[in-house]
Amino acid sequence: MRASLIQFGVDPQESVDSRRQRAASLVREQSGADLVVLPELWTVGAFAYESFAAEAERAADGPTHEAMSKAARDAGVWLHAGSIPERGADGGLYNTSLVFSPEGELTATYRKIHRFGFDQGEAVLMSAGTELVTVALPGTTLGLATCYDLRFPELFRGLVDAGAQTLVIPAGWPARRLAHWTLLARARAVENQAYVLACGTGGSHAGVPQAGHSIVVDPWGEVLAEAGEDEEVLTVELDEAKVAEVREQFPALKDRRLGMRTPGA
Amino acid sequence: MRASLIQFGVDPQESVDSRRQRAASLVREQSGADLVVLPELWTVGAFAYESFAAEAERAADGPTHEAMSKAARDAGVWLHAGSIPERGADGGLYNTSLVFSPEGELTATYRKIHRFGFDQGEAVLMSAGTELVTVALPGTTLGLATCYDLRFPELFRGLVDAGAQTLVIPAGWPARRLAHWTLLARARAVENQAYVLACGTGGSHAGVPQAGHSIVVDPWGEVLAEAGEDEEVLTVELDEAKVAEVREQFPALKDRRLGMRTPGA
Repeated sequence: MRASLIQFGVDPQESVDSRRQRAASLVREQSGADLVVLPELWTVGAFAYESFAAEAERAADGPTHEAMSKAARDAGVWLHAGSIPERGADGGLYNTSLVFSPEGELTATYRKIHRFGFDQGEAVLMSAGTELVTVALPGTTLGLATCYDLRFPELFRGLVDAGAQTLVIPAGWPARRLAHWTLLARARAVENQAYVLACGTGGSHAGVPQAGHSIVVDPWGEVLAEAGEDEEVLTVELDEAKVAEVREQFPALKDRRLGMRTPGA
Repeated sequence: MRASLIQFGVDPQESVDSRRQRAASLVREQSGADLVVLPELWTVGAFAYESFAAEAERAADGPTHEAMSKAARDAGVWLHAGSIPERGADGGLYNTSLVFSPEGELTATYRKIHRFGFDQGEAVLMSAGTELVTVALPGTTLGLATCYDLRFPELFRGLVDAGAQTLVIPAGWPARRLAHWTLLARARAVENQAYVLACGTGGSHAGVPQAGHSIVVDPWGEVLAEAGEDEEVLTVELDEAKVAEVREQFPALKDRRLGMRTPGA
């Protein structure tokens, strides 16, 4: 399986509509891939708090949905279109990831469970998701998480319990905590014996330089590819059979003795 | 708080009794420390399966208890004496850590929860512990784990829930998986915002070269000290206030939204 991670550069001078068109073009260029991944909140920038409500969209029929559905179909790829500020049917604002099939169908949405910012920013502007989401692709099952979620190992245990083999983590991680990004991406791969595809943003916005360094890690913790700081597309070949191989040869996941509650329990 | 990690060299030619006397001497040399840590199963070697039953002892009054109690008292230190093959009152064999106060009292025991070896070795020879163990010292609360436990993030979440601020992990980690050792020690520190004191064995026994590389990591993930491969004592100064500082300045632990069951649930 070939995966392309589009480390999108969020430039504050660019309009939201231009970002959508440019992202769609970048997705179309990945027609040789099976799975394409975009980062977190790339329509606005993860730290552009003032834009969250203003640029919020519906997941099922907003302008990003329309552009990404068409781009997935045009390229004939599975598309994890990163996340958008979503205006939910309940009126709440969510940090929501969208996954499209190669036919352009919205196959899954994931509302970010752990909101960043402590008592400000996303933590107060957004509502928290409560559901773990996996997506069965032909060769692997994706487990979805977003940015700050990476710090919470219990989320990934839940995703693995639900069958995840490839953990996909769009992000808008700050450059000054880059060391934690790389460390935790590798740790999630090793402890869950899963691929990690972690796709960040490049550039700088709202005064926050982005870490970039999108990274692909195999189920034994080897880094298969890692981006620099600027806009860049990482393309890697994944061996879907490797997750089962590692889990069989070193069956640590079978040795778990302490469980976790399901969300909300 | 000053901590000394004794990366004990397990030489197959040395007798168990000689190891005990030598470990006691090394502990006595650390009288300037507040806390001294020994590695996993250093009386026999973590891969010397045939010795587990033959050299098993009672935790409360065996020869290792006697030697370590006296050494802790002589040095006037808290002593995490690593682990021993313990013969329990129930007849079971456990991989059990012993913690002594500066007065030589056995303050806590921890029976390793995750046994290594899959269908052989420790996994079949030993019984599994079921209880999370923390130990309140004057300046910090220790959370206890052993070697293979390091691969299971849910254990450390449980320890943090129980108040742990310093995670102490004696080990007999194989050299060929050294990359996982260092990675996971750092990840446990970062995600739990806790000190990690991970003390391994040096040398080689039962045909398994040991990783050594005992490591001390601060609550922000910085490596404060790391040993080489041979017998060595690592001494570091810990700032007990730093755990609370990091947890207050970057309060990620308060943002946990998914819980865990208590052991056995």
